[in-house]
Amino acid sequence: MNLVSKILQQAVDEFAQLPGVGQKTAFRFVLHLLKKDPQELRKFGNTFLQLQEQVQYCKECFNITDREVCDICSDQRRDHSTICVVEDIRDVVSIENTEQFKGLYHVLGGIISPLDGIGPSDLHIAPLVERLQSGEVKEVIFALTTTMEGDTTNFYLSRQLQKFDVKLSTLARGVSIGGGLEYTDELTLGRSLVNRVPYESSLAK
Amino acid sequence: MNLVSKILQQAVDEFAQLPGVGQKTAFRFVLHLLKKDPQELRKFGNTFLQLQEQVQYCKECFNITDREVCDICSDQRRDHSTICVVEDIRDVVSIENTEQFKGLYHVLGGIISPLDGIGPSDLHIAPLVERLQSGEVKEVIFALTTTMEGDTTNFYLSRQLQKFDVKLSTLARGVSIGGGLEYTDELTLGRSLVNRVPYESSLAK
Repeated sequence: MNLVSKILQQAVDEFAQLPGVGQKTAFRFVLHLLKKDPQELRKFGNTFLQLQEQVQYCKECFNITDREVCDICSDQRRDHSTICVVEDIRDVVSIENTEQFKGLYHVLGGIISPLDGIGPSDLHIAPLVERLQSGEVKEVIFALTTTMEGDTTNFYLSRQLQKFDVKLSTLARGVSIGGGLEYTDELTLGRSLVNRVPYESSLAK
Repeated sequence: MNLVSKILQQAVDEFAQLPGVGQKTAFRFVLHLLKKDPQELRKFGNTFLQLQEQVQYCKECFNITDREVCDICSDQRRDHSTICVVEDIRDVVSIENTEQFKGLYHVLGGIISPLDGIGPSDLHIAPLVERLQSGEVKEVIFALTTTMEGDTTNFYLSRQLQKFDVKLSTLARGVSIGGGLEYTDELTLGRSLVNRVPYESSLAK
């Protein structure tokens, strides 16, 4: 790209660092913003300054929040006896969108991955252990990815939490709802056969 | 999307207004920015505030610039007797990237499109006519899209400029270089047959 304006080039470069955005798309984004009112563009810039100033992590669950304790952790209508352990904030949003979970979360901030140099001490594992000290928590659900790293993290967590009287569970794995068998990978299909469930419990409620 | 943080939601919404960006991609962009240093995020926001403050349009050609007259128009090594008329700033970048054009540009800011309510008075046509008054310009190249609207605009411009002693030309249309005939649309292929050129002039220089 060969742009005449330095500040234009700078704006394009800022967009181009985003995942999946190249110089051409970035340029399209900038021209889109420039076509709007100047105050819209100012609002765009200000939003990210505010984001930098205001964003913080919930001191309980490490979700992103505007306050010290996030809306989920401070909501007394939610079930404080169940904690769902997830890798990052995106997973919280995915699970919240299902509207099937009324407990609390704990965001690890990653999973154990020796190849990437991420060990247990890099994750929010100690604060999770601390949350269980009070005895209020009755169940911890592991909702990590089913990769080698996810399984390793699950195993590590289960060892850390075994001294507490809590039920440990993981998400059910199997064929997608609405998914044809021919599109399901062998490993998932095989596991879903081994871990088959009684017909009655499979009926949607 | 069901985000706990208001400022996070606001940042996602700002990204989601960009062309081709949905809520999920926008959320991915925001999380990407949040993983960086706080000063990187501040720089991101500040860039767009500066863009709003600093960006202006060249008073000669209406290209985006940081100054009153853009780098292209003020470059004395460029050929000031040739003006290439384009629809928007993106076209300037496309042509500059070819490194085949050493003249000046004139950005119309759109093309005549009665269906979209865009008439000649909405475009930078009067300033183009004004640029020709000095008599310095010897050739005007129309580099607009080959749609009905582009052709209409070309025709309108040619009528406006006929009182001047300038050569009017348009981009050559034909089969893409490296493109197979089976992938060329009928209209282009037909025209490229009718407007065939002597073999010698087709050889790359």
